[in-house]
Amino acid sequence: MGSYHKPDEKTLQGLKDLANKLRIHSIKATCASNSGHPSSCCSAAELMSVLFFHTMRYKADDPRHACNDRFVLSKGHAAPVLYAAWVEAGYVKEEDLLNLRKIDCPLEGHPTPKLAFVDVATGSLGQGLGAACGMAYTGKYFDKSSYRVYCLLGDGECSEGSVWEAMAFASHYSLNNLVAILDVNRLGQSEAAPLKHNVHAYQERCKAFGWNACVVDGHDVEALCRALWDAEQFKEKPTVIVAKTFKGRGLEGELVKNDGWHGKPIPKDRVGELLDKLQSKNQGPEKPFHPKLPSEDAAPVDHTPILLLTPPEYKIGDKISTRKAYGVALKRMGDASQRIVALDGDTKNSTFSDIFKKAHPDRYIECFIAEQNMVSVAIGCATRDRTIPFASTFAAFLSRAYDHIRMAAISQSNVNLVGSHCGVSIGEDGPSQMALEDLAMFRAIPTCTVFYPSDGVSTERAVELAANTKGVCFIRTSRPDTAVIYDSGEKFEIGKAKVLRQSDNDQVTVIGAGVTLHEALTACDQLAKEGVNIRVIDPFTIKPLDAATIVVCARATGGRVITVEDHYKEGGLGEAVLAAVGEEPGIVVHQLAVSQVPRSGKPQELLDMFGISAKSIVAAVRRTFAN
Amino acid sequence: MGSYHKPDEKTLQGLKDLANKLRIHSIKATCASNSGHPSSCCSAAELMSVLFFHTMRYKADDPRHACNDRFVLSKGHAAPVLYAAWVEAGYVKEEDLLNLRKIDCPLEGHPTPKLAFVDVATGSLGQGLGAACGMAYTGKYFDKSSYRVYCLLGDGECSEGSVWEAMAFASHYSLNNLVAILDVNRLGQSEAAPLKHNVHAYQERCKAFGWNACVVDGHDVEALCRALWDAEQFKEKPTVIVAKTFKGRGLEGELVKNDGWHGKPIPKDRVGELLDKLQSKNQGPEKPFHPKLPSEDAAPVDHTPILLLTPPEYKIGDKISTRKAYGVALKRMGDASQRIVALDGDTKNSTFSDIFKKAHPDRYIECFIAEQNMVSVAIGCATRDRTIPFASTFAAFLSRAYDHIRMAAISQSNVNLVGSHCGVSIGEDGPSQMALEDLAMFRAIPTCTVFYPSDGVSTERAVELAANTKGVCFIRTSRPDTAVIYDSGEKFEIGKAKVLRQSDNDQVTVIGAGVTLHEALTACDQLAKEGVNIRVIDPFTIKPLDAATIVVCARATGGRVITVEDHYKEGGLGEAVLAAVGEEPGIVVHQLAVSQVPRSGKPQELLDMFGISAKSIVAAVRRTFAN
Repeated sequence: MGSYHKPDEKTLQGLKDLANKLRIHSIKATCASNSGHPSSCCSAAELMSVLFFHTMRYKADDPRHACNDRFVLSKGHAAPVLYAAWVEAGYVKEEDLLNLRKIDCPLEGHPTPKLAFVDVATGSLGQGLGAACGMAYTGKYFDKSSYRVYCLLGDGECSEGSVWEAMAFASHYSLNNLVAILDVNRLGQSEAAPLKHNVHAYQERCKAFGWNACVVDGHDVEALCRALWDAEQFKEKPTVIVAKTFKGRGLEGELVKNDGWHGKPIPKDRVGELLDKLQSKNQGPEKPFHPKLPSEDAAPVDHTPILLLTPPEYKIGDKISTRKAYGVALKRMGDASQRIVALDGDTKNSTFSDIFKKAHPDRYIECFIAEQNMVSVAIGCATRDRTIPFASTFAAFLSRAYDHIRMAAISQSNVNLVGSHCGVSIGEDGPSQMALEDLAMFRAIPTCTVFYPSDGVSTERAVELAANTKGVCFIRTSRPDTAVIYDSGEKFEIGKAKVLRQSDNDQVTVIGAGVTLHEALTACDQLAKEGVNIRVIDPFTIKPLDAATIVVCARATGGRVITVEDHYKEGGLGEAVLAAVGEEPGIVVHQLAVSQVPRSGKPQELLDMFGISAKSIVAAVRRTFAN
Repeated sequence: MGSYHKPDEKTLQGLKDLANKLRIHSIKATCASNSGHPSSCCSAAELMSVLFFHTMRYKADDPRHACNDRFVLSKGHAAPVLYAAWVEAGYVKEEDLLNLRKIDCPLEGHPTPKLAFVDVATGSLGQGLGAACGMAYTGKYFDKSSYRVYCLLGDGECSEGSVWEAMAFASHYSLNNLVAILDVNRLGQSEAAPLKHNVHAYQERCKAFGWNACVVDGHDVEALCRALWDAEQFKEKPTVIVAKTFKGRGLEGELVKNDGWHGKPIPKDRVGELLDKLQSKNQGPEKPFHPKLPSEDAAPVDHTPILLLTPPEYKIGDKISTRKAYGVALKRMGDASQRIVALDGDTKNSTFSDIFKKAHPDRYIECFIAEQNMVSVAIGCATRDRTIPFASTFAAFLSRAYDHIRMAAISQSNVNLVGSHCGVSIGEDGPSQMALEDLAMFRAIPTCTVFYPSDGVSTERAVELAANTKGVCFIRTSRPDTAVIYDSGEKFEIGKAKVLRQSDNDQVTVIGAGVTLHEALTACDQLAKEGVNIRVIDPFTIKPLDAATIVVCARATGGRVITVEDHYKEGGLGEAVLAAVGEEPGIVVHQLAVSQVPRSGKPQELLDMFGISAKSIVAAVRRTFAN
């Protein structure tokens, strides 16, 4: 390794000067935007100066290069100091800082990947470290590259449990290529953070969670150089640098000491004087800092589409649950490409991601019972297209990570999320385990494609499509075994429904998915015996929904549509259909859905009790005629 | 205080025997249901026996008595051992255990408050301790009562960050009336938990988070008696008992040692022999255990409705944001009743809950940046109707707690949640801070009333109604100042819309809420100048939605409806309206809503950019005619 050499005085002075320049940029930018968080930038100025111009290795003209060290600004409200660092690195134009937060400028209030130097959007606190874990896991175990990952957190956000999920994950997997820096500036938004300046309490917590933890003066550039150098030498554990800082450091008087300055620009009548003072501290001459370059040891990404090597191996009539078909599909996609990786939250024997794990153990990440972190890690793994992650758990428990999923869209992430055990059809375990709001959740994610496959063949194609689709993908799988209804050669497309039953005199269009599609088919057969024909549609994707096919079928069946879903009435299949036909006069939609908190019971009993079984469909079709 | 007296041998043997009885009940029950988690029950048998029959003080015939010690089974999948304890306490009939998980039996797969001895539903892991914190905070600071709170957690769920949010909260507020017991049985669902049997690692983590922490043999009843006695004596901190246990303890051979037995009943061919062995360990004679009775020092709840002492003090045309009106309203409700309490997650100067805090500091709980725990604490505060909590943060960050909100419905909680800063109208801070999926989230909560007030007066009435409404209530508030549009005497009801503009020749019905209602009013005035009248509706509550008024107005305007909302297109106001008119032929609904990830900018610029401003409404109305 070699021993530590203290940087020369000129370098140290240069880093100090740079820190003040970052302060000046941050103040000017937030004054120009008349909003933002200059005091939160100022506490981190030395941390950023040392990280960006002494420690990290990266190509300043190619911020998203595969081999660069990664940096995640978990305290996203300090965005101006990040933008300022990239001004000093030469990538952002100084004059653009004055367009901060304007509607035509990518320098937004919080960082997003519209900027090449941002891998994940931040601004919802406590999410950066989990994403950094995903990047570090990828670097160490998949890329086997020397790039390192740095994550800057605020002290306030350390109240978020997701930070401690990530802490536990990083130590469990010995992510010695990961460094967290806590900017302990004492003050939250509305009052002091609970631990105030008790840096040793942070240190003890981090140590107990398995990290190498040191405390430093976060405004001492030499101490920071040393601590970051030490972190690189420490091979057993991830390192956290607990940096004692002052919010608004470098500003004067009350701004440093008091609450009430969070998220406020410097008053216009004081800014000139403050900037002069900061400027006067700098001892120039201006020396350009060139960041160290990375080792070229991460392979470029192969972007060719990943296709199943052979078609699905199911025969029509075979019985398999879509959750199991997911496991089989993912394993087969893993056969096709090394880029496919899987994550699960200690439910792999229920989601069947364990089928993938058995075949590709090196590409499976056990995330234990920490769904927020699982999603963050997956998002981290997906950055710079290094991997194509599929993260699975019970769909109900993806609700735990909804804020992270919301942020995944802002992060332009291509993460794939798979939720099993949807709806009342899981049976005896009861409502806490039943996902009945997941379609509402995922439909409201703007970049999300929502797959709801209904048999083994379509599940396998959903997984294949998801792997090759940009944006967040969600695949909803079911617990019960159901019949394979598609030939193994059947083609599936996003936004293309399948019309499974049709005749020249269909009376109603019935749209179901998953178990309710099978109930609809049963209802169809039963009604046919009575001489009543219905049209049955499998939407395959709930978002985008195949509005054209639905409208054509609805028109062919007198404008009568019934939707049936193992989901609450709000935000799911029924409302998706309503939205699709909402501007078409003369189409009426009757929703069959779960309308109250369900309970334990046998799956079929529950489908009956909550009115989404074949029996309920038959009754609803008959009522349509009675009207 | 007195010194510790070791229980006599007869008592200790009785507790051991009881533990085995709990095992026997759990095994029989899960065999009868042919599903469930007997091995997870067995690790906790001694913990439950000592807690319920030696330590806790409660009225066994009145489990929800205000003065009883509280017990939260955070590891909800061990429900049978909880039911078994209440069999032994005499409250549940032994024969009912054999109906476990059946559709007509309240003994469900995971505990819910259908059972009087359950205060909060569990089954989504890691949520019990936060609720227990709310109960303990209430007992110590609001009720000032001697009841104590016990929470039993599994080791697997300690990977959930929410557990550590609760840990930090409990120590910060010195909840010395709270005891957590970790049942460290080593095995999760699909493999060993990450810390396996490293009980000292758990102890160190808990200590670092500010708890008094001890390690015990969780199968040693005497050690447990002692540890729980010690916990009661320790006055500075909450206590955690890290109990080393074995999953399936008391069963034989492979069940104890191996993975793969999680959530599986004992095979029918082995159960008789196992039960015989357990039975043979018991040394009877059966001695009935009577739990100790509680002190009667918690006042009964006054259930009279809580009404504002005077009407809202706004005049039509006053400018106030609904977020600020929320703070004013909550303060005024706090004037009316001591039962109103407020919680916030370090955003009180943005949500304006600080107005309440200033007036009623003793009834404000700062939860710091830990939204999951904030919601759990609020749910805990609301149990047994001890308080009426209002918990606020940015609506975007309530997505962090969606799993907890989902569980609040299963818990039959009356918690009130208030989300500010909805939509793109917050402006410069950008998409991470904008709630655009919160209506979808909350509409899909089956017990939820969703208020979306549009001015100061209606906000104040929303708060008053929420305080007196069962189920989860959500109030969505906005950042910009908007005009007061209602007279202070205006009456509001849940599910009753207000028609704000109407004439005999309205061409379109426009439905908006919050800022978009004001945009609709502006559009109305503008169109009126062109001689085009439109009808404008304020729905007030989005769930339940006033379908009758909407249908009447839609019919009066040629079946033409336009919805306009500062929310994504999916699951919000537009789809609520679509669902309300879905079975009415001849009504067409055009949705104006945000349809992609937004960005930073000025509020009005963003309303224009995303097509939900007055300009967009005017254009949409004109298009209606063009068609």
